[in-house]
Amino acid sequence: MQFDARPAFPRGFRCASRNCGLKPEAKDLALFVSDVDANAAAVFTRNHFPGAPIILGRETIRGGRLRAIVANSKVSNVATGLKGVENARRMAVAAAAELGTSAEHVLVSSTGVIGVPLPIGIIEDGLRGMASELVDDPLVGAEGIMTTDTHPKAISARVGAATITWVAKGSGMIEPNMATMLAYIFTDAQIDAGTLDSMLREAVDVSFNMLSVDTDTSTSDTCAILANGLAGPVSEEAFRNTLIAGCVRMTEMLARDGEGATRLLRTTVRGAIDLAEARRVAKSLVNSPLVKTMVFGADPNVGRVLMAVGKCFDCTIDATATDAWINGYPVVHQGQRLDFDEAAVRAALAKDIVDIEVGLGVGDANARAYGCDLTKGYIDENAAYYSS
Amino acid sequence: MQFDARPAFPRGFRCASRNCGLKPEAKDLALFVSDVDANAAAVFTRNHFPGAPIILGRETIRGGRLRAIVANSKVSNVATGLKGVENARRMAVAAAAELGTSAEHVLVSSTGVIGVPLPIGIIEDGLRGMASELVDDPLVGAEGIMTTDTHPKAISARVGAATITWVAKGSGMIEPNMATMLAYIFTDAQIDAGTLDSMLREAVDVSFNMLSVDTDTSTSDTCAILANGLAGPVSEEAFRNTLIAGCVRMTEMLARDGEGATRLLRTTVRGAIDLAEARRVAKSLVNSPLVKTMVFGADPNVGRVLMAVGKCFDCTIDATATDAWINGYPVVHQGQRLDFDEAAVRAALAKDIVDIEVGLGVGDANARAYGCDLTKGYIDENAAYYSS
Repeated sequence: MQFDARPAFPRGFRCASRNCGLKPEAKDLALFVSDVDANAAAVFTRNHFPGAPIILGRETIRGGRLRAIVANSKVSNVATGLKGVENARRMAVAAAAELGTSAEHVLVSSTGVIGVPLPIGIIEDGLRGMASELVDDPLVGAEGIMTTDTHPKAISARVGAATITWVAKGSGMIEPNMATMLAYIFTDAQIDAGTLDSMLREAVDVSFNMLSVDTDTSTSDTCAILANGLAGPVSEEAFRNTLIAGCVRMTEMLARDGEGATRLLRTTVRGAIDLAEARRVAKSLVNSPLVKTMVFGADPNVGRVLMAVGKCFDCTIDATATDAWINGYPVVHQGQRLDFDEAAVRAALAKDIVDIEVGLGVGDANARAYGCDLTKGYIDENAAYYSS
Repeated sequence: MQFDARPAFPRGFRCASRNCGLKPEAKDLALFVSDVDANAAAVFTRNHFPGAPIILGRETIRGGRLRAIVANSKVSNVATGLKGVENARRMAVAAAAELGTSAEHVLVSSTGVIGVPLPIGIIEDGLRGMASELVDDPLVGAEGIMTTDTHPKAISARVGAATITWVAKGSGMIEPNMATMLAYIFTDAQIDAGTLDSMLREAVDVSFNMLSVDTDTSTSDTCAILANGLAGPVSEEAFRNTLIAGCVRMTEMLARDGEGATRLLRTTVRGAIDLAEARRVAKSLVNSPLVKTMVFGADPNVGRVLMAVGKCFDCTIDATATDAWINGYPVVHQGQRLDFDEAAVRAALAKDIVDIEVGLGVGDANARAYGCDLTKGYIDENAAYYSS
């Protein structure tokens, strides 16, 4: 899959971002707009305490049409009661007024601290005049939704005459389920909302839903796709493949930029008895603090790989059939640690991308999960997130 | 429950520990002995890659009788194949020879790095002469089984004319299930093996099985109880209550000494729909990296408590019925963050013991889990565990 050297928007999409005063200086407000109404689909967090924008968003997406997305960072508008939902609605109304569209076609996202009232007045003021600042660089919008991200994240790729563009944020409180952090996908391909929905769910399932920075599932996870049709119809198969590849690539970017991360960790499980178990074992590996610190320290303590596989109590694991590799080096064979070249494995663990592969040898199902190492940077960022 | 100011053994139990050369200087070999054969029960790890001592121990405990426990630290004898089981057997034989008993009455434990061959010769040599060093201070034996523990752990309490003594180790790779790290319980009360087994399982279920330092389940977890009967029969009800109280107390000691920990974190869930869900939500709270770093930083970011409750997707959670307290301060009411005194909650979070209590308001089931904060010390200890 070839991504553009510099991310570009599909025809008819533009964005803007500003500092409206929620943060001292950094950008905290973003607007993504299509020139015409777009078919749309979205998936949201499964957390039992969804933010007000999620409650509103589930209602908005039912129409299958979106014209814009408005998002703020710093305050997530979660655990804020009916007042929070009212504030989310006011945010949609303010964005719609600025763009000359209807609030029912505006998806709202908020990300940041949980449990703090949304300063809606500041956001309403901040939105005024943003329509005149719309540009065709998706990185500008990506900047407006960053929290602890170290860089804005956007990529784009071509499918026939159409373009797909992914914009996302998120680096902590990430083990999405049914959806993920904030990820917005824009395309000018012509696709109906129902097809968009099923393709989005399929792509999210093997990408964002297999990502975990810290096992904590956000209350604000949102992944939405907008197709404005300006490029006309494309091959559905090609679109589907590109959509999946881009979601996987964005998942890797989010994992590599996980809070405090110094490496991208990919865990691949082969030969599981079924897909559900392949996914569970891959997630167990990618979430294990002892595997993650082993990767951070480039310490070839490979017994931890077996530990993390073995703690999947209810999975079918044959201790004498389990093999493991680290960046291609065999380290475990039939459940026993091999007498491998420690310097080589140490060097492999010090690479920017660390692939841990496990063969379970009990079936044909495979899965891959995405995460990062666990470092002191994670502790630094999260011991005073609210206060700082 | 009153524990002895200084831990003592029940009648007829003694122990010894030594440095046999597995570690450079620290003690690495321990022997716990009853003067007479004792009724015994034990529970072991549910990890699919149980260590060789676990494989042997499951066989040994079937007899329901033990005379001694021999344990080494530094090397766990896990993922070592048939040779590993043979080495565990040789360890039992060597201890039995030293004590003049049979190998079938010796329980073996090994703890330390996974996947390294057990230096059995060094252990056999080390055991020679240990019978002459047996003393009645349980802390001496506790010293021999330490890995990353910062202090040896033993407590004792009285039940009628009898004594119960708990000796344990463990501070990382701890989310036991069906058993825990290494925990040995000795009593001179007269109780049959079947009763011991059921009482042990009941006590472990509300104590060690509700402990999590890092969600990683060890391959060596063992919890055994030996009753040599020298004090005669006691009230079963009193014994049961004391056994549970001591297991909970030892669980708190292990949690407080979790790798890198600066505080004991207790999470209590009330009003869950059933016990299984109460336990799951309590574990979700105690395991959440974002809750753990909030406690480390004494940062009153209480929205994370709701996040960690809400990510129990399959549990019955009513977002408008959920309340939360931190060391008694109400911080969430009916799913919304209260406007609480931040300085007071900050001070509460900085205490040595932090109690997070959640009321789900959907049923009558309660559970408590035990853990600790997540700090840079955890990263330090685990990024180079194998190499150091």
